[in-house]
Amino acid sequence: MDHVRGLAQATYQNSDIGAAISSGSFRTRGMVIAPCSIRTLSDIAYGTTDSLLSRAADVTLKERRRLVLVVREAPLHAGHLRSMLAATENGAVIVPPVPAFYHRPKTVDDIVSQTVGRCLDLFDIDVGLVKRWRAGDDE
Amino acid sequence: MDHVRGLAQATYQNSDIGAAISSGSFRTRGMVIAPCSIRTLSDIAYGTTDSLLSRAADVTLKERRRLVLVVREAPLHAGHLRSMLAATENGAVIVPPVPAFYHRPKTVDDIVSQTVGRCLDLFDIDVGLVKRWRAGDDE
Amino acid sequence: MDHVRGLAQATYQNSDIGAAISSGSFRTRGMVIAPCSIRTLSDIAYGTTDSLLSRAADVTLKERRRLVLVVREAPLHAGHLRSMLAATENGAVIVPPVPAFYHRPKTVDDIVSQTVGRCLDLFDIDVGLVKRWRAGDDE
Amino acid sequence: MDHVRGLAQATYQNSDIGAAISSGSFRTRGMVIAPCSIRTLSDIAYGTTDSLLSRAADVTLKERRRLVLVVREAPLHAGHLRSMLAATENGAVIVPPVPAFYHRPKTVDDIVSQTVGRCLDLFDIDVGLVKRWRAGDDE
Amino acid sequence: MDHVRGLAQATYQNSDIGAAISSGSFRTRGMVIAPCSIRTLSDIAYGTTDSLLSRAADVTLKERRRLVLVVREAPLHAGHLRSMLAATENGAVIVPPVPAFYHRPKTVDDIVSQTVGRCLDLFDIDVGLVKRWRAGDDE
Amino acid sequence: MDHVRGLAQATYQNSDIGAAISSGSFRTRGMVIAPCSIRTLSDIAYGTTDSLLSRAADVTLKERRRLVLVVREAPLHAGHLRSMLAATENGAVIVPPVPAFYHRPKTVDDIVSQTVGRCLDLFDIDVGLVKRWRAGDDE
Amino acid sequence: MDHVRGLAQATYQNSDIGAAISSGSFRTRGMVIAPCSIRTLSDIAYGTTDSLLSRAADVTLKERRRLVLVVREAPLHAGHLRSMLAATENGAVIVPPVPAFYHRPKTVDDIVSQTVGRCLDLFDIDVGLVKRWRAGDDE
Amino acid sequence: MDHVRGLAQATYQNSDIGAAISSGSFRTRGMVIAPCSIRTLSDIAYGTTDSLLSRAADVTLKERRRLVLVVREAPLHAGHLRSMLAATENGAVIVPPVPAFYHRPKTVDDIVSQTVGRCLDLFDIDVGLVKRWRAGDDE
Amino acid sequence: MDHVRGLAQATYQNSDIGAAISSGSFRTRGMVIAPCSIRTLSDIAYGTTDSLLSRAADVTLKERRRLVLVVREAPLHAGHLRSMLAATENGAVIVPPVPAFYHRPKTVDDIVSQTVGRCLDLFDIDVGLVKRWRAGDDE
Amino acid sequence: MDHVRGLAQATYQNSDIGAAISSGSFRTRGMVIAPCSIRTLSDIAYGTTDSLLSRAADVTLKERRRLVLVVREAPLHAGHLRSMLAATENGAVIVPPVPAFYHRPKTVDDIVSQTVGRCLDLFDIDVGLVKRWRAGDDE
Amino acid sequence: MDHVRGLAQATYQNSDIGAAISSGSFRTRGMVIAPCSIRTLSDIAYGTTDSLLSRAADVTLKERRRLVLVVREAPLHAGHLRSMLAATENGAVIVPPVPAFYHRPKTVDDIVSQTVGRCLDLFDIDVGLVKRWRAGDDE
Amino acid sequence: MDHVRGLAQATYQNSDIGAAISSGSFRTRGMVIAPCSIRTLSDIAYGTTDSLLSRAADVTLKERRRLVLVVREAPLHAGHLRSMLAATENGAVIVPPVPAFYHRPKTVDDIVSQTVGRCLDLFDIDVGLVKRWRAGDDE
Repeated sequence: MDHVRGLAQATYQNSDIGAAISSGSFRTRGMVIAPCSIRTLSDIAYGTTDSLLSRAADVTLKERRRLVLVVREAPLHAGHLRSMLAATENGAVIVPPVPAFYHRPKTVDDIVSQTVGRCLDLFDIDVGLVKRWRAGDDE
Repeated sequence: MDHVRGLAQATYQNSDIGAAISSGSFRTRGMVIAPCSIRTLSDIAYGTTDSLLSRAADVTLKERRRLVLVVREAPLHAGHLRSMLAATENGAVIVPPVPAFYHRPKTVDDIVSQTVGRCLDLFDIDVGLVKRWRAGDDE
Repeated sequence: MDHVRGLAQATYQNSDIGAAISSGSFRTRGMVIAPCSIRTLSDIAYGTTDSLLSRAADVTLKERRRLVLVVREAPLHAGHLRSMLAATENGAVIVPPVPAFYHRPKTVDDIVSQTVGRCLDLFDIDVGLVKRWRAGDDE
Repeated sequence: MDHVRGLAQATYQNSDIGAAISSGSFRTRGMVIAPCSIRTLSDIAYGTTDSLLSRAADVTLKERRRLVLVVREAPLHAGHLRSMLAATENGAVIVPPVPAFYHRPKTVDDIVSQTVGRCLDLFDIDVGLVKRWRAGDDE
Repeated sequence: MDHVRGLAQATYQNSDIGAAISSGSFRTRGMVIAPCSIRTLSDIAYGTTDSLLSRAADVTLKERRRLVLVVREAPLHAGHLRSMLAATENGAVIVPPVPAFYHRPKTVDDIVSQTVGRCLDLFDIDVGLVKRWRAGDDE
Repeated sequence: MDHVRGLAQATYQNSDIGAAISSGSFRTRGMVIAPCSIRTLSDIAYGTTDSLLSRAADVTLKERRRLVLVVREAPLHAGHLRSMLAATENGAVIVPPVPAFYHRPKTVDDIVSQTVGRCLDLFDIDVGLVKRWRAGDDE
Repeated sequence: MDHVRGLAQATYQNSDIGAAISSGSFRTRGMVIAPCSIRTLSDIAYGTTDSLLSRAADVTLKERRRLVLVVREAPLHAGHLRSMLAATENGAVIVPPVPAFYHRPKTVDDIVSQTVGRCLDLFDIDVGLVKRWRAGDDE
Repeated sequence: MDHVRGLAQATYQNSDIGAAISSGSFRTRGMVIAPCSIRTLSDIAYGTTDSLLSRAADVTLKERRRLVLVVREAPLHAGHLRSMLAATENGAVIVPPVPAFYHRPKTVDDIVSQTVGRCLDLFDIDVGLVKRWRAGDDE
Repeated sequence: MDHVRGLAQATYQNSDIGAAISSGSFRTRGMVIAPCSIRTLSDIAYGTTDSLLSRAADVTLKERRRLVLVVREAPLHAGHLRSMLAATENGAVIVPPVPAFYHRPKTVDDIVSQTVGRCLDLFDIDVGLVKRWRAGDDE
Repeated sequence: MDHVRGLAQATYQNSDIGAAISSGSFRTRGMVIAPCSIRTLSDIAYGTTDSLLSRAADVTLKERRRLVLVVREAPLHAGHLRSMLAATENGAVIVPPVPAFYHRPKTVDDIVSQTVGRCLDLFDIDVGLVKRWRAGDDE
Repeated sequence: MDHVRGLAQATYQNSDIGAAISSGSFRTRGMVIAPCSIRTLSDIAYGTTDSLLSRAADVTLKERRRLVLVVREAPLHAGHLRSMLAATENGAVIVPPVPAFYHRPKTVDDIVSQTVGRCLDLFDIDVGLVKRWRAGDDE
Repeated sequence: MDHVRGLAQATYQNSDIGAAISSGSFRTRGMVIAPCSIRTLSDIAYGTTDSLLSRAADVTLKERRRLVLVVREAPLHAGHLRSMLAATENGAVIVPPVPAFYHRPKTVDDIVSQTVGRCLDLFDIDVGLVKRWRAGDDE
């Protein structure tokens, strides 16, 4: 996660409702929430936004910017899937951090890096983390 | 907002869950929430009521009394609209505080007063705030 | 409620998010929430789980174990019913603690015991609380 | 139930389809059905009205008068909840006769009286049955 | 129709968009549209309001006043019924002018009067037009 | 109604469940129910068919033959409209017996005849009852 | 059908509403309805339960026990399928008694036995009726 | 099945995508698929048509000709029923080959013939296979 | 388009609301609208019928006659598709005038003729315009 | 509004259906409608586009360009919200011109400018109108 | 089609599941499928992706890149439209290759070129194929 | 995956449609598909079952046995989520193989083992793979 943290310019407390990112007038490129709990997912899906985290996510959606949710939960029941679908209909992108095997990960770090890199792909940011598929790979 | 506040007989802390207005057996004419955040709107739409404010609103709906929500948010995404629709289906009235121009408001106060007056219209209360449309007005 | 409490092996604070029952890997037979407020019902229906209570309930559902919700609210509006339906679709069982009269309850305790017994019926546990219907009974 | 019966001016057989209350042109303030079986609830929800009881309820709804259904059933499955939701969308008010404990009921009669009183609240009729919540009460 | 017309205090051209009744701030008791074409019904159901008639009806709904639509169309296809359902969900009351026979109408006028009277019933106005059902009537 | 009755070859008691028309193997051109109560409409919409009338209607639908329902009810609430929509989706044609005025009916009989004729139109049967619209008519 | 009848311990009249199986407090393993008419199917799907048969089925569902409906109807229209889907969502299992040919039935009895056996499979009861598929079979 | 096969004028391989019946411009009276697997049913319901069989069926529907699907599957789960409903909404007729007993079938052939005959009934073709219900029959 | 125009017996102005074809009592075989704009499509889908064109189309649907809409629009957004689906559910047939290539069209006229011919196919009218698929054709 | 008007290169009459912007082949960056009446909103939501304004908006959506609707209406009923939701699903952005107070507006002009600026934000155009939130602001 | 083919850098067999474009980690600008059969459309709408073509399309959607489907089918039934709507909700753009006439096409090639050019417009690529609308054109 | 493979008693080719597990009469405890592609997921969700794998899964669902789908795909679009929701409504359990970190996995194998173990938990099988949460763990 350090790669992600290193790219940020500021950090806020989750209770800091008055932070700049809670206003649509503050301009950003988008937002990634990783990991994203079922609770935060549902707050975004249904609008029950009571922390800086979910309020900023809601603002990202209303300004039609990219919002990526790394939802780490299993198994899933119907309610989880309805929340994911509602969040998607609101404009978010759901990215479960499932390991890909075509790039033959050797360590837990390889798996995490691939997920981080694939999230950044959704912003057209390439910091060299993703091992891209080549025709010869098999999974 | 002073006109509204002057009409109230009592005030409560939002954390005062045991206040009289959180019980359906306490009789009221209805309730106005102004301004109403997306969070409070969604709590009312979906029942995730964890403050005196949203609990009292929920009670107002279950007793089939008038509930008016002055939702001040823009832009709106699909999730916001679904919350508004669900709240409306539960019996609430959504009133975005959009300025009307037919009455030629001169100050910010004129705009606020018109919204307050129009909310009270929904309770058949007329305290003289609303400038009513006359055929000659143009907008 | 003492009968229920006597069957438990451990108790937790509602804020104790790190308790064993908040993980799916901890194995249980299921869960009863009595009484279940509209807020807890909605948290389970929509996934806005921010306490040990609602998180443990959510885990019970995702592991496909039995979850019983003793919802005590009246009157019900459309939002309440949609929450109940969503929770049911997620796998929960809604049990309003309505008194049955065929067993001719004489005290408030008789009514409470019957509800507790009927909830345990849903786990195939019979501790002798339920007065079962016999053909001659009339209500 | 005697309090309720004492307020009525006339009684009809359920098979008396020709009774005055089965016509919308006969004017009433509304109707309470207590207890209301799942069958009667569903007849009202879906219009399969074949008795004076359900026909009169349907007429109450089409004339936009108040209809209160005291549904006593537990547990509830998805079909029951869909019926309740459909009846609510048709205009009815669902009131499960769940006991309230804030007024510290001592007898079964106290519980029944509270439910009857709360139903009458929905017609703005107060015959003194309801023990109203006061801030000091705890449940 | 003369009974209805006689009760009105003013008349407007349908193109007179600036008329008082097109503003929510002008207070009325409600509105009856008789007859109501499929087009006007659909304009009200979906909001495509381009005349004084449909705009005033829309205002009546947003102010939560009574709106009665005397829809005279047959046969009905699925689209007509969806329009009626949407208008009903918006708050309108659909009243097809079907003749009742229990009052043994002798002329076309009897039929029209009964429909007019029944519409006014929905406003609790009784001008003596409705022949009310008596137990002995048969249809 | 005598015109209709005169066209029938046989009559049955409503309780005669074993009558030929309750089997799909018995071939007919279709069926008209006039008048059609809300109950019969709902039985057809939802399949709760417990008389010869509704069973034969259900058979007509499953064999994809024409079924016409002359529903005479007003006002309509959301449940009535959902029943009509469901019946329409099952293949039925809803025909409220609303009077048309373009043919300048002089008697109640004229109104009834026009409705009967228009129903037969749906079977491509023309027995001369319908006064067809001509360009000069005004309504 | 004699195999099934031989397994029962008691029989009731359909009008015997007071029979033990109409109460959820009476414990059973589940219920099979064979054959199940469209009417009984719809009564279970929508809750319009007016006989011992449909009431007992409804109780089976609310107690989350197995309910198997052997629906014998063809062709099916949209309403039939919606009823089947609603009953399935309520927890029932729809089993049309369609003949299987992989076991090369020689008589009508072979076909009936196979259906009965397959229904019992759903209760994990094997009385030797089912001819189980072997790899070599072709249909 | 020989009766059906004898009526056909041509046969095709299922992989013969270029066959005449895969084009809407080739005119037919309709199509029967017997037996119809869940897979073919779903291909028709959702349009995933990758064989001559399902492509020809899709063409039959788009040209608004009769399509009959003899679906032989049991038990049915929610997905099967949704497929059947979708296919029905696309215009197909679902006919499970359930045996009828009112005609007292003596052999497996009698059962098959009755189903074939009933399918042809849907095209108004009567080749004498169907034993039609007579009032005296009991089932 | 001359082939089509030559088949008509009368022409009307679009504003001629009183024309014969705007009444269901005037009998026709059906109607083709070519080209059909998104506006006319939506008017038919939702009932906002304010011209002779859309009113006559609506009448065609309510009388259950064939209505063909040659919708020429691209790209399509979700709203266009919902309108097409609603119109289809009302009974219309959507025919985008997409060129077929199996008949090797050489001119723009060939493409237009093929579309016209295929529309007439839906009325079982064959005026020799359609080049029908033969097995040897490839596309 | 002069700021907006000054940015335009051409103006058209609303009846000028042949204007360039009514064709998808004419390339634009998007479109703002301010103010946007309920009628125009609904025309865009449902496709009943009969003016240059709504036709151009529809084209903007089908070409997947940005469309911003400044809807100024209050209170809102269910139909208004369904229109807003449908328009959003078609790709539009709903922006009610609600005043923000964190930037302490002193005049009506301040309020209007803020709304105009926020709309342009949605096109990534910043002409200096928006007072952006700073952490110290309170509302 | 040669214009399109000339722009591609590589071609694959449809069975070459291991091709680079079947992985989200391979970066592209988007994808056009022309022509797109109903089967491929449905595979994309519902995820039944069993060829390189549909798998690559699905990857395009999950990475939120542009996907254009040139669907050439007529007439359309409800299932086709539901597939188009589902694909649109997944993010695809449906483009039926309907001829436009405002640019006065003289040959079949003119029609094809216009469709190809309009598809490329959706990627903001202009290779000079599109004849753009000018105010003087009439259609 | 070797732990899983070691538990199986037989293996089949995916094209072996005649294998025992493709018949509901063959009794199993349930089925796990790991990994489960989007295609297989959708085949199960919608019934387009054309391999032994998806046919056996469909049979597992119709016999109401446990079916676990280890879906490894990211990001997810709306179509993927609708497939997951449909499969869940059919009775399947969706388990994305997301790594849990509370048990401090050190190798890729630890992650895989945890997922396998958690799947077996859903069958109440514990082969010692799962590291269960203890109160002291932090993630």
